[in-house]
Amino acid sequence: MSELKIIKVEESIFAHNDLAAVENRAKMTENGTFFINVMSGPGSGKTTTLSALINMLKDEYKIGEMDVDIKTSLDAQKVADATGIESMQINNGGLCHIDADMTARALEHYDWKDLDLLILENIGNMVCPAEFDTGAHKNVMLWSITEGTDKPLKYPLMFTVSDVILINKIDAIDYFDFDFDLAEQHVHKLNPAAKIFPISAKTGEGLDKVADWIREEIAAVKAKAGK
Amino acid sequence: MSELKIIKVEESIFAHNDLAAVENRAKMTENGTFFINVMSGPGSGKTTTLSALINMLKDEYKIGEMDVDIKTSLDAQKVADATGIESMQINNGGLCHIDADMTARALEHYDWKDLDLLILENIGNMVCPAEFDTGAHKNVMLWSITEGTDKPLKYPLMFTVSDVILINKIDAIDYFDFDFDLAEQHVHKLNPAAKIFPISAKTGEGLDKVADWIREEIAAVKAKAGK
Repeated sequence: MSELKIIKVEESIFAHNDLAAVENRAKMTENGTFFINVMSGPGSGKTTTLSALINMLKDEYKIGEMDVDIKTSLDAQKVADATGIESMQINNGGLCHIDADMTARALEHYDWKDLDLLILENIGNMVCPAEFDTGAHKNVMLWSITEGTDKPLKYPLMFTVSDVILINKIDAIDYFDFDFDLAEQHVHKLNPAAKIFPISAKTGEGLDKVADWIREEIAAVKAKAGK
Repeated sequence: MSELKIIKVEESIFAHNDLAAVENRAKMTENGTFFINVMSGPGSGKTTTLSALINMLKDEYKIGEMDVDIKTSLDAQKVADATGIESMQINNGGLCHIDADMTARALEHYDWKDLDLLILENIGNMVCPAEFDTGAHKNVMLWSITEGTDKPLKYPLMFTVSDVILINKIDAIDYFDFDFDLAEQHVHKLNPAAKIFPISAKTGEGLDKVADWIREEIAAVKAKAGK
């Protein structure tokens, strides 16, 4: 009984969420702001990676960050401290995701109209965030080599909805059994168009290519907006 | 509107779940079966750790394992292959947790009455599984040093409901900034009674102490059951 109830409620939320996501995305496109949603399991390195990328790009673009966390504002503070950009904390009160409505409400309190790039750092979770389109133009996920090569098999939706997959912590490869070829096969079976970038947020290796991808996407969104 | 609906449904589920959990736990105690629920983020090493522990204990005790996964039966197969014990796969169809009802239904299909130790390997997620009492006697969580020292601050409920915390992958400590003293402070602020065991599932370091803890708990449950 209780399970059936959950499913019904979720279905109506998903349909409603998709509409709200389309609205968020249209607003961003019209404004010429490239909007990315960054997802991963806990401790995969989202905050460190984003801080490094923001520092590589902040002299070229106006960048903003919204950080979703259950309770603390640790990550938003870390990004603000590491980069000097304006970072906003969204506390989601214990939910395991952020949806398009929550994103829209957060945007009402955030001065995003001048931004070239808006980054949403989702909550550390490989299940729920994948179910909710936030309205971002692109989904980016981090996958740490310390988590093992089988993750796409175990969390297929996350890998299916992600446009870009950053394989992080490659500097520690000597300590972990991670098979890059097999990882790529697993990902492309679910999602043939996914771009994969091996990176180390710690040493900076591979981040130049991710920064180039962001530059191209910012240019594409600005072209659509006629800017 | 949609959010309010979610909260109402969740409240009734939580209350119902707590009752079902009490029933599961009473059944296990009466039978003299020590039942543990093992939780962590994705890729923290649950399957490898459990396989190693089962191999250390399987000549002394009859052990069973139930493995929750969204879609695959990879982990149940890995445990069965590595240990030779009977392992059961529970596919939860995309949910981010297993609750007490689902556990009870799984138990109907599993021959657990002879077991001294029953292990439930929960889904890899630091948020949702912490919200649902499964009826296990003890909650055990794995925390990998690769995930960083701040995790108790970010996922407080998981650390609050866990009786035992295994800090895993300590063999890779040279590659990661992990502060064991600070980690312990963070945990004990939330949960003063939590036992913490640093381990390496890969090298076996520290697992003897975890095995000793399991032996003590099995003896305690058997004493309660008068066995």
